[in-house]
Amino acid sequence: MTEQKTWSQRFESALHPAIAIFNASIGFDIELIEYDLTGSVAHAKMLAHTGIISTEEGEKLVAGLEQIRQEYRDGKFQPGIDAEDVHFAVEKRLTEITGDVGKKLHTARSRNDQVGTDTRLYLRHQIEQIRSQLRDLQGVILTIAQDNVETLIPGYTHLQRAQPLSLAHHFLAYFEMLDRDWQRLGEIYQRVNISPLGCGALAGTTFPIDRHYSAKLLNFTGVYSNSLDGVSDRDFAIEFSCAASLIMVHLSRLSEEIILWASQEFNFVTLKDSCATGSSIMPQKKNPDVPELVRGKTGRVFGHLQGMLVLMKGLPLAYNKDLQEDKEAIFDSVKTVKGCLEAITILLAQGLEFRPQRLAEAVAEDFSNATDVADYLASKGVPFREAYNLVGKVVKTSLAAGKLLKDLTIQEWKDLHPAFEADIYDAIAPRQVVAARNSYGGTGFEQVRLALKAAQERILVN
Amino acid sequence: MTEQKTWSQRFESALHPAIAIFNASIGFDIELIEYDLTGSVAHAKMLAHTGIISTEEGEKLVAGLEQIRQEYRDGKFQPGIDAEDVHFAVEKRLTEITGDVGKKLHTARSRNDQVGTDTRLYLRHQIEQIRSQLRDLQGVILTIAQDNVETLIPGYTHLQRAQPLSLAHHFLAYFEMLDRDWQRLGEIYQRVNISPLGCGALAGTTFPIDRHYSAKLLNFTGVYSNSLDGVSDRDFAIEFSCAASLIMVHLSRLSEEIILWASQEFNFVTLKDSCATGSSIMPQKKNPDVPELVRGKTGRVFGHLQGMLVLMKGLPLAYNKDLQEDKEAIFDSVKTVKGCLEAITILLAQGLEFRPQRLAEAVAEDFSNATDVADYLASKGVPFREAYNLVGKVVKTSLAAGKLLKDLTIQEWKDLHPAFEADIYDAIAPRQVVAARNSYGGTGFEQVRLALKAAQERILVN
Amino acid sequence: MTEQKTWSQRFESALHPAIAIFNASIGFDIELIEYDLTGSVAHAKMLAHTGIISTEEGEKLVAGLEQIRQEYRDGKFQPGIDAEDVHFAVEKRLTEITGDVGKKLHTARSRNDQVGTDTRLYLRHQIEQIRSQLRDLQGVILTIAQDNVETLIPGYTHLQRAQPLSLAHHFLAYFEMLDRDWQRLGEIYQRVNISPLGCGALAGTTFPIDRHYSAKLLNFTGVYSNSLDGVSDRDFAIEFSCAASLIMVHLSRLSEEIILWASQEFNFVTLKDSCATGSSIMPQKKNPDVPELVRGKTGRVFGHLQGMLVLMKGLPLAYNKDLQEDKEAIFDSVKTVKGCLEAITILLAQGLEFRPQRLAEAVAEDFSNATDVADYLASKGVPFREAYNLVGKVVKTSLAAGKLLKDLTIQEWKDLHPAFEADIYDAIAPRQVVAARNSYGGTGFEQVRLALKAAQERILVN
Amino acid sequence: MTEQKTWSQRFESALHPAIAIFNASIGFDIELIEYDLTGSVAHAKMLAHTGIISTEEGEKLVAGLEQIRQEYRDGKFQPGIDAEDVHFAVEKRLTEITGDVGKKLHTARSRNDQVGTDTRLYLRHQIEQIRSQLRDLQGVILTIAQDNVETLIPGYTHLQRAQPLSLAHHFLAYFEMLDRDWQRLGEIYQRVNISPLGCGALAGTTFPIDRHYSAKLLNFTGVYSNSLDGVSDRDFAIEFSCAASLIMVHLSRLSEEIILWASQEFNFVTLKDSCATGSSIMPQKKNPDVPELVRGKTGRVFGHLQGMLVLMKGLPLAYNKDLQEDKEAIFDSVKTVKGCLEAITILLAQGLEFRPQRLAEAVAEDFSNATDVADYLASKGVPFREAYNLVGKVVKTSLAAGKLLKDLTIQEWKDLHPAFEADIYDAIAPRQVVAARNSYGGTGFEQVRLALKAAQERILVN
Repeated sequence: MTEQKTWSQRFESALHPAIAIFNASIGFDIELIEYDLTGSVAHAKMLAHTGIISTEEGEKLVAGLEQIRQEYRDGKFQPGIDAEDVHFAVEKRLTEITGDVGKKLHTARSRNDQVGTDTRLYLRHQIEQIRSQLRDLQGVILTIAQDNVETLIPGYTHLQRAQPLSLAHHFLAYFEMLDRDWQRLGEIYQRVNISPLGCGALAGTTFPIDRHYSAKLLNFTGVYSNSLDGVSDRDFAIEFSCAASLIMVHLSRLSEEIILWASQEFNFVTLKDSCATGSSIMPQKKNPDVPELVRGKTGRVFGHLQGMLVLMKGLPLAYNKDLQEDKEAIFDSVKTVKGCLEAITILLAQGLEFRPQRLAEAVAEDFSNATDVADYLASKGVPFREAYNLVGKVVKTSLAAGKLLKDLTIQEWKDLHPAFEADIYDAIAPRQVVAARNSYGGTGFEQVRLALKAAQERILVN
Repeated sequence: MTEQKTWSQRFESALHPAIAIFNASIGFDIELIEYDLTGSVAHAKMLAHTGIISTEEGEKLVAGLEQIRQEYRDGKFQPGIDAEDVHFAVEKRLTEITGDVGKKLHTARSRNDQVGTDTRLYLRHQIEQIRSQLRDLQGVILTIAQDNVETLIPGYTHLQRAQPLSLAHHFLAYFEMLDRDWQRLGEIYQRVNISPLGCGALAGTTFPIDRHYSAKLLNFTGVYSNSLDGVSDRDFAIEFSCAASLIMVHLSRLSEEIILWASQEFNFVTLKDSCATGSSIMPQKKNPDVPELVRGKTGRVFGHLQGMLVLMKGLPLAYNKDLQEDKEAIFDSVKTVKGCLEAITILLAQGLEFRPQRLAEAVAEDFSNATDVADYLASKGVPFREAYNLVGKVVKTSLAAGKLLKDLTIQEWKDLHPAFEADIYDAIAPRQVVAARNSYGGTGFEQVRLALKAAQERILVN
Repeated sequence: MTEQKTWSQRFESALHPAIAIFNASIGFDIELIEYDLTGSVAHAKMLAHTGIISTEEGEKLVAGLEQIRQEYRDGKFQPGIDAEDVHFAVEKRLTEITGDVGKKLHTARSRNDQVGTDTRLYLRHQIEQIRSQLRDLQGVILTIAQDNVETLIPGYTHLQRAQPLSLAHHFLAYFEMLDRDWQRLGEIYQRVNISPLGCGALAGTTFPIDRHYSAKLLNFTGVYSNSLDGVSDRDFAIEFSCAASLIMVHLSRLSEEIILWASQEFNFVTLKDSCATGSSIMPQKKNPDVPELVRGKTGRVFGHLQGMLVLMKGLPLAYNKDLQEDKEAIFDSVKTVKGCLEAITILLAQGLEFRPQRLAEAVAEDFSNATDVADYLASKGVPFREAYNLVGKVVKTSLAAGKLLKDLTIQEWKDLHPAFEADIYDAIAPRQVVAARNSYGGTGFEQVRLALKAAQERILVN
Repeated sequence: MTEQKTWSQRFESALHPAIAIFNASIGFDIELIEYDLTGSVAHAKMLAHTGIISTEEGEKLVAGLEQIRQEYRDGKFQPGIDAEDVHFAVEKRLTEITGDVGKKLHTARSRNDQVGTDTRLYLRHQIEQIRSQLRDLQGVILTIAQDNVETLIPGYTHLQRAQPLSLAHHFLAYFEMLDRDWQRLGEIYQRVNISPLGCGALAGTTFPIDRHYSAKLLNFTGVYSNSLDGVSDRDFAIEFSCAASLIMVHLSRLSEEIILWASQEFNFVTLKDSCATGSSIMPQKKNPDVPELVRGKTGRVFGHLQGMLVLMKGLPLAYNKDLQEDKEAIFDSVKTVKGCLEAITILLAQGLEFRPQRLAEAVAEDFSNATDVADYLASKGVPFREAYNLVGKVVKTSLAAGKLLKDLTIQEWKDLHPAFEADIYDAIAPRQVVAARNSYGGTGFEQVRLALKAAQERILVN
C-alpha cells in the first residue's frame, strides 16, 4: 500500500505502488540529509529573523531539525520508500516532533530551491575535500621528485625513446596537471557556492524573506540573481563533472605509465606487495590492480559527464523532474574521484620502488642523444635542418653497423663534419644530455631544482 | 586488518587496507552470485565428466555449491569486503563445507573465464526479461491503437501542425520502434550466449577439459573459438548498452510527447491520479513525473555506453583489471531500462486518458489540410510544384484574412484555379484528409487497420 | 609518388602513399597557418634576441614568414598533401625564399611545442570572439526584457503551468546562463593563454633560449613551467569543449522553448518570415528551423568533448601522434558555437514577435494562482502545509465544477476558511500574483526592474 | 541577396542571408547526390508505373535526372549555398532541363522520405565496402597467423607476463573480433536496407503510389510499415555508429599492442620505413604514427555515436530539423573507419617485421610457466588451490634467489613436493607450455592449426 503523500489533497486516488517506487529518490538522496537539515535550519532562522514566523516557532523548528540530525546519526531515523524523498521525510518527522509548527517550515520555500541548496552544500564540501586530496598527492609527488632530481629515465614521444630525463622532471609534469585541477576546482567552487534558497518553485515568493541572510548563515558567497535560473541551473554540476573527468585523465595517464613501468619489459619499478595483487590461477603473478582500476574508472566519470549533459539538453524552464537524475551521477563521480586519488596517493607514497640501476642502463643504450649531436653542430653555425639531416644519416649507418653514437671514433665524427671535436663525447653522455636542457621548464638539473622549489612554495597555498 | 588473500603465497606482506577496499568488487558483484554458482556447478560436472576429478568429488562440489545457494537465499551467506570478490567468497565457503575437495574446483579455470561466464549468464537472463517487457509494452500500445483507429490527432513535423493522423497510426510508430528493439536484442543475445568457460586465464588449459560439455549444461549455443578473445571480449556488453540506449531513445521520444500532450496548451490527455504527482508548494500541480524521469534517465544509459567504450579503448590483450568496471555499468543500464519499461507500460495502460473531443477540434482549426489542396490539383494534372506554390499563396491570403481553407467560397476556389469543383470541401475535411492517405504504411484508416492486424500477429512471436 | 619528407634521412625507403595521406594533417591544420606564422615570427625574433642566430638572419626569417603570409592571403601559397602538415609546408617554403637561413628556423624548437603554440593562439582568438558574441546575445536579451517587464507569460515547472511570470524575468534567466558562460570562458582563457614555446620535443632545449621573451611577443600571460606538460597538455582544449557544451545546453533550452512557443498550441510567438522556412510538400508550413538546428547541433559539441576526453585517456607522456586529432574537434566546436550564437542572436533580434494578448489570456485561465491562496492563508498564521492542503481541496472541487479560483464567491471562500476576506480577489489576479513575488531575484516587477538595471551594468564589462 | 526559395510562396519576405547559410545543408549533403538521383529515378519510374504521371513524363524525368548525374560527374553541376540542399538543387536543375515535367517529380513525396531514402542507399553502400575491408584485414591476419603458428610470444594479463602463446593464436583473437564486426554489420544492414520512400512528409500520401515497386527498383528488401516511423527513424544510423565504435575499439587495442611491441623496451617488432615517420627535431626517431592515429581517431567515432544519441533524445514525432545533423556524423564515422581499416591493413601486410629471436628469448626468461607447475601437481591429484599455493612460495623464494624455475634442481623440486619427477623440466619448457594448452580454443599448436583452418573457411563467406 502506498501511504498518502504530502501533496495528495488535490488528487482523487493514490499513486500506483510501482510508480511510487519508480519516482522515489529517498534511496539515494538520503546522502544529502545532513546538508538538508543544515539548509532547513538556516531557512527556519531566516523565517524568524524576518518575522514570517515567531522567534519561538523558529527555535522549535531548529531544535526539531537538530533532533532529527541526532536521530539520523544514531541510526534511529531511517526513512523508507514511502517517504518519497529526503525533504518530505524530514518535514514529516519534524511535524511529528514539533506539531503544527513543523507545518510552517516549508513557508516561502519549494523543494526546487531546497534541493538546489542541498546539492550545492554537498558539492561544496566535496570539492574542499578533493582539493585537499589533490594537495596531498602533489605533496607525495614532490617527495618523489626531491629524491630523484638526478635519477635518469628515458623520455618518450610516441612511446619511442626520445631524450633522457630527470625522473623528478617527469613527475613534476604531473604536479602541474594536478595544480591545474586544484585551481580549476577553486574557480568552479565560486559558482557552486551561490545560494538558490528563496527562489521558491520558480518565481520567488510573496513572503518578505531575506535571501542574503540565509545565504550568509550557510556561508554562501552570493545568491542567484534570477529565481528561474536558480532552480533550474545545473551548470555547476556539469562543470564539476568536467573537472572530475580531467582529474581522471591525469590519473589515467599516470596509471598507464606505472603499468608500463611495472611490466617485465620496462622493469623501471617494482610494485610493493602492499599495493599489488595476485592471480587466481597463475601463482607468479603480481598485478598492478590499482593503476588498472583507476584507468578503468575513467570511463565512468566521462560517462557521468555525458549523462548530465544529455539530461540538461533542451529542457524548458524551469524545474523538471529530469533534474532528479543529477544526484547519482554527481555522487558517483565524487566517490570515484576521491577513491582514485586516495589509492594513487598510497601507491605513490608506499607502493612503488624505482630501479635506478635499470634506469641508468636504459638511458645509455639508445640513440636518445641524437638531438644533441644536431644541436652541437647547430651551435657551431650549421643550419639546424642541415645538422639534423646529417645526424639522421649517422643514425642510419650506426644502426646498420650495430653501433651506438658513443661508439663512433673521433675520426668518424670528423669525417661526418669537420666541426666535431673531442668534446662531442661529453655532449652525448646521458647525464650531460639531461643537464644541457637547461632552458626554462626544461629537464636540466638546475631548472628542475628551481621548479621543485617553486612547486613546494605553491602547495603551501591551500 | 586485511585478511590473507587466496593468491597471497607469492607475496611477502599484506595488502594495504585502503587498497583492499579500492580493489574489491564484492560490493556489487554479489549480484552475480546465483549465476556464479550455476557456472561453477557446470564446471564441476565437466571436471567429473572428463575424469579430471572423480565422480564423487564432482558430486560433493555440486552439493556444496547448492548448499551455498540455499544459504545465500536464506540470508545466511553474506560475504564482506575481505572476500575480495564473489568468486573467492564462494570458493572459500565451499572449502569450508567440503574440505580439500573444494580446493579442486578451480582446476582448469581462471577467474577471467569464470567472470565472463557469470556476466553472460546474467545478461542473457536480463535480455530475456527485457524482451518480454518490450512485448508487454507493445501489447498495451496495440490496445490503445485498437481503441483509437478513428480518433484523430494533429500530426507534426518541426512541432508545427503538418497533417492530421489516426491516433492509432501515431502509436503504431512506437510499436515499430519497440519491435526493432526486440529484434535487435534477439540478435545480440546470440553473441551474448557464447561460453568463455575453459578459456582459462588467457591461453586455455593443460587439462583435458570439454568446453562444449559445460557450455551445453549452461544452455550456451556456442563456445568462444579463441581463448584470448574469450576472456577479453566485452563487445556483447557494449552492444547491449547500445541497444539499451536505443530503447531509451524511443521511450524518451514517447515521454516527450506525453509531457507535451499533458500540458495545458496541448491538453490532449489527462493524467490519472495514480500516475501523476504534486508539488510541495503549488497546490494545483499535477506533474507528469513518470515521463520526465524516463526522459531524464536516458542520459545515464547513454553515459554507461560511453563509459564502457572508454573502458575498452586501447586495452592490450588479454584480461586487464579495468574490465572489472564493466559490471556496475551493465547492472545499472539493465535496472534503468527495466524500470522505465515497467513505468511507461503502467502509464500507458492505466495512466492516460485521451480527450477525443479536444483532439477532434484541434484537427479542424488549422491549415493542416493544405497539402490535400495541392494534391487535389496535382491529381487533376497541375504539376505538383505549381499546385504547391498556388496553395502557398492561398494560405498566405487566408491567414491575412483570418480564414481557414474551409471558409473559402466555391467562387474563391475557382478564381484560384478553374480545376476546383465542389468536391474540394470533402477533400479537405479532417476525416477525409486522414482517410485519403491510404498508401501502404500511411495513416488512412484502411491501412491502419491492416497495420494493426499485422502487428497483432507479429507479437505472437516471442 | 611520395615526396621525400623532411625527416627522411634516417629512413631507407619512402612512406607508403596511402599511409602518407592517412598521416597528413595539412587538410585541416592549414586553418592554423596565420597563427603558425605569427608563432614562428616570435620564435625567430627570440633566436636573434638571444644571439642563437644573427640579427640579420632573424630579419630574413621574419621577412620570409611575412612573405608567406601575404602569399597565403593572395591564394598563391596552397600546400598540398605532400606537405604533411602546415609546419613543414611553411618551413619548406621559407627555405625556398630565404635559402640556408630558413633551415635555422627550427633551431631550439620542435613541432610539439610549435603546434601547441599555434593551437593556443587560435583558441585564444576564438574565445575572444565567442565572448563578444555572448555579450551581443545578452544585449539582445536585455532589449527584449526592457520591452517586456510587464508582459505576463505562464511560468512552468514540469511543463505544467506553475506561476505566472514577467516575460522579462523569463529572459533574464537566459541572461544569467550566458553570463556564466562568459565568465567561465574568461577563466579558461587564462589557462589557454600560456606559452609552451620552447618546451622543445619534450625536455626543453640545449640552446640558451628566452621563453619569456617569445611569450611576451605573442601576448601570452605566462609560460608552461614544465616542458613535458607543455607539449602534452590538452586540458585547455577539453575545458573549452566543456564550456562550449554548456553554451549549447543553454541555447538548446532556449531553442526548445521557442519551438514550443511557436507551436499552434502555445501560440505565444509568431516567427517572422526572415527566420523561418517552409516545407517541400506542405504549403502551409512555417518551421522554426533555427532553434531546431541549434538543438540538433548540441549533440555534436557534446560528442567532440567526449572525443577529446577519450583521446587523452591513458596516454603516456609526452607527445603522442593521437594528439593530432584534437584539432578538428576544436575547430568544429568553435564553428558550431559561433554559428549557433549568431543564428540565435538574429532570431531573437529580428525573428520573434510575442503575442501579448494571447499571453495575457493564458495567465488568466488556469490555477497558477493557487500558491497565492496558500500564501494568503499562511500570511494570516495558518501553517503553510495546512493552508496548502486546504487549497489542494479547493482546486479539486473547482476542477470538478469547471470553475477557476476567481469564480468562487466570497461566501465560498469564507466557508473554506474564515480568514478569507474580499482582498483575496486582488491577491489572485495575475498581475498581482506576479507583482507579489517581490523577493530578491523573484519575478515581481520591482525586482525585475532592479535585475534589469544590474544586468545592463554588468555587460558593460567586456 | 538570398534567392527565392522553393517553399517561399507562403512567405512575405525573404530569409535572412545569415540564417540561409546556417540552415543550408548543401555544403555536406552534396555527398548524397548520386544516391539522391538514383532514388528520384526510382520514384519517377514508380509514378509512371502507377499512372500518376504518364509514361512519357516518366521517361523525361529519368532522362533529366541521368543528365544531371553526368553533369555532376563532369564537374558541371556544382550547386551553391542558395540551393539550400541537394534535393532542391536537383529539382531546380531538373525543371530547367525538362520544363514543367520537372515540377511533377515531387508528387507524392516529401524531402522527409526522400532524404531518408538517400541516407539508407548511402549507408548500405558504405557498409558493403566496410565489410569487404574487414574481410581484407582478416585475410592479412590469417597470413600472419599462417606464418607464425610456432612463433612464441609472451602472453599478458594486466600487462604482466602470464603464459606464453603462439603468435598465431594472438592474432586469431583479432580475427574473431573482426568477424563479429563483419557479422554485426551484416545484421544492421538488414535494418538499413528498408525503404521509407512513399512515407511522405509523415502520413503517407493521397496518391495511389506503389512503395513496393520503387523499393524493388532500389534493391531494398522491405518497406517501412509505418510512415511516421519511416521519416523519423534514425536507429539504423545509431546502430551503425555503435558498430563503427566497436571496430575502433578493436583497432585501438591492436594499435596499442603494436605501439608497445615497437617500443625499445618490448622490441618485438621492427616498423618498416614505409609505415613509420620521423621527428622534426630528433633525428633518430621512427614513430608508429599509424597505430597512434588509429587509437586517437577512436574518440571521434565514439563522439559521433554520442552526438547521434543526443540528437534523437526526446524528439517528438515525426520529422524535426534536428535530423539534418545526422549526416556529417555518419559521413565522418564512415570515412574514419574506412581510413583506419585501410591503414592498419597496409601496416600489417607490409609494415611490421616480427623479431622471432627476441620473442623466443622473452618467453624463456620469466615465470610465465608457473601455472604449469601447479597444473603438473594438480594432474597428480594435489588439489589445485594447494598446488597453486605451493608454487606461489616457490616463486617467492626463487625471485629472492635470482633464479628461474628451470634453474631448480630435481632435488629442490622433490623437496617441495614428492610428486615432482624429472619430466617437470619438459613440462615447463616454453614450447611445451604452449603446446600443452591444447583445450578447445587454446594456444596449443594443434588447436591453433585447427582454428586457423576454420578461420580460412569462414572468410570464404562474403
